[in-house]
Amino acid sequence: MAPKSDDERPTLEDVAAFAGVSRSTASRALNDDTYVSARSREKVLAAARDLGYSPNQAARSLVTRRTGAIAVVLSEPEARLLDDPYRTAVMRAGYRELADVGCQMVLIFSDTREDLTRTVRFLEGGHVDGVLVFAPHRADPLPRALRLLRVPVVFGGQAADLRRGVHVVDFDNENGARLAVSHLVEAGRRRVATIAGPQDQGAPIDRLAGWRKTLVDAGLDPAGLAEESDFTLSGGARAMSALLERAPDLDSVFVASDMMAVGALRTLSAAGRRIPEDVAVVSFDDNATLAPAMTPPLTSVHQDPREQVHAMVVTLMRLLEGQEIKPGQQVLPVSLTVRESS
Amino acid sequence: MAPKSDDERPTLEDVAAFAGVSRSTASRALNDDTYVSARSREKVLAAARDLGYSPNQAARSLVTRRTGAIAVVLSEPEARLLDDPYRTAVMRAGYRELADVGCQMVLIFSDTREDLTRTVRFLEGGHVDGVLVFAPHRADPLPRALRLLRVPVVFGGQAADLRRGVHVVDFDNENGARLAVSHLVEAGRRRVATIAGPQDQGAPIDRLAGWRKTLVDAGLDPAGLAEESDFTLSGGARAMSALLERAPDLDSVFVASDMMAVGALRTLSAAGRRIPEDVAVVSFDDNATLAPAMTPPLTSVHQDPREQVHAMVVTLMRLLEGQEIKPGQQVLPVSLTVRESS
Repeated sequence: MAPKSDDERPTLEDVAAFAGVSRSTASRALNDDTYVSARSREKVLAAARDLGYSPNQAARSLVTRRTGAIAVVLSEPEARLLDDPYRTAVMRAGYRELADVGCQMVLIFSDTREDLTRTVRFLEGGHVDGVLVFAPHRADPLPRALRLLRVPVVFGGQAADLRRGVHVVDFDNENGARLAVSHLVEAGRRRVATIAGPQDQGAPIDRLAGWRKTLVDAGLDPAGLAEESDFTLSGGARAMSALLERAPDLDSVFVASDMMAVGALRTLSAAGRRIPEDVAVVSFDDNATLAPAMTPPLTSVHQDPREQVHAMVVTLMRLLEGQEIKPGQQVLPVSLTVRESS
Repeated sequence: MAPKSDDERPTLEDVAAFAGVSRSTASRALNDDTYVSARSREKVLAAARDLGYSPNQAARSLVTRRTGAIAVVLSEPEARLLDDPYRTAVMRAGYRELADVGCQMVLIFSDTREDLTRTVRFLEGGHVDGVLVFAPHRADPLPRALRLLRVPVVFGGQAADLRRGVHVVDFDNENGARLAVSHLVEAGRRRVATIAGPQDQGAPIDRLAGWRKTLVDAGLDPAGLAEESDFTLSGGARAMSALLERAPDLDSVFVASDMMAVGALRTLSAAGRRIPEDVAVVSFDDNATLAPAMTPPLTSVHQDPREQVHAMVVTLMRLLEGQEIKPGQQVLPVSLTVRESS
């Protein structure tokens, strides 16, 4: 006989007795088994509802050791998350890739200091089997806090300032910038400006470094040709204005995201610069809905968020199966999609 | 002395012993208390990490009866969710409103039949204190399945085909349509068409009914003037084409969402109809970024997703405090924001 649970919760036996059916019928009805009459099922569900019955979480987790849920944590101001096409693509990809392996995606936005405490408390509370994290900001305390978790964690892109002991799946940002800038230089461009992303994040730092190194390697001078912005459309437009003012002779620009490139295109058109004749534009992301839809269509460094999330899920599943995987960075290659803007 | 947990998980005592500190020091370090030396904290955190320690979920929940987390469930094809401005506004509002009451938002997309099983399993597993649900489709089995949950549930908009026993916060969709159509009729319009939303959902059904009743009350004939669409921009454009073909003499159109209205404006402009001189347009949502930004700016029925989510959170918090609230529908008023499109 099952022991009475100490917090007086209703048991499966209680539900069966209340519904006037056998324990096995009650179990089948609650597990959506087909071998139950519609009438019995109705009675069991009503009894479960009335008694406030819920399968015992602790008892079940001893059998499966799984909640079936994986958290996807986006550590970023929430105002940004839903406007950023890369982030929304990550949410979609997370949903699809986790569904493909039979897992429930549990999406968490974490932004403020209070969020951090709540988020860590939730993640360490046994509510999820594993965690996928996007925490790009260098000063973000979240990645360090997550090292305490008992469940496996895989990062998408650099984990704030953590250098070791974490599983990371990232794109080759520096090489992406190199592909973009080499493409411009090989086409004869000599004044290659850049609109960089926020320099408190790993990926934009690497893209800026790739731009600078490639120019220097080609014997070109990067001085005065970089402007930092914030990954938004309006930020890209403002940065392009600043560059045109400072270096009116620029003949091309490498923009660290498609969204900022949309803003840059607007500024260039408003300033009467023809694209690509006067100024060639190459961006980063190759977002499937954005890059080909622009006027002119954008040449862009291709990175597929679904590919990144897929690799993260694969690593997480291996960790959940108990495989020993050395922490470290898995770097996914990028390529250049050439269109009319360059 | 604390009993040894039966699944051999490390206890706080184990962590203290491993770190070589007292139990109270270990506890303070793990709870981020300031009265611990940096060195002790480091040792405790390292011990917790090495042992795989996590505070005992069951023991804690007996004290607080709270996970601190609230699920926001969006039961809709994931491909739609992140493109629909109302849904993304709901996600933002959920994050903000729940943070305001100190709760962690846990966002869940639920679409397929397999999702349903996973979602219900997660929600009934003791991982969240309560659930806010948006499940607009009439045939959606989720709301019925959620009646089994032990935690309180509040619906945003109608709960599929459930009529009783659920807590619902909805807008007055029918009256919104009445405001829109009366505004057009009072301005002298006589051929008032409508682009309706999907008729497998409560809100669009009510908006269509409001359009029809208001016309009939005014002695006007609605025959042949309604076209159903899918809440997308391209769907709105197609529906407008169909209406223009069927009723070229239409002088106005009530569109059941801002997004569809954007598509309708494109079709009308392409067909050479002046707005509002030839065709007046009124939409529904009054989305803050969309409606005022159109050419011409849209007259739209105003409903604020944050207001809806706020009312849902208030109801949920009262239920969590143990207040007896009779299930039923709380109807929020809507108003008409008049701009240049009408």
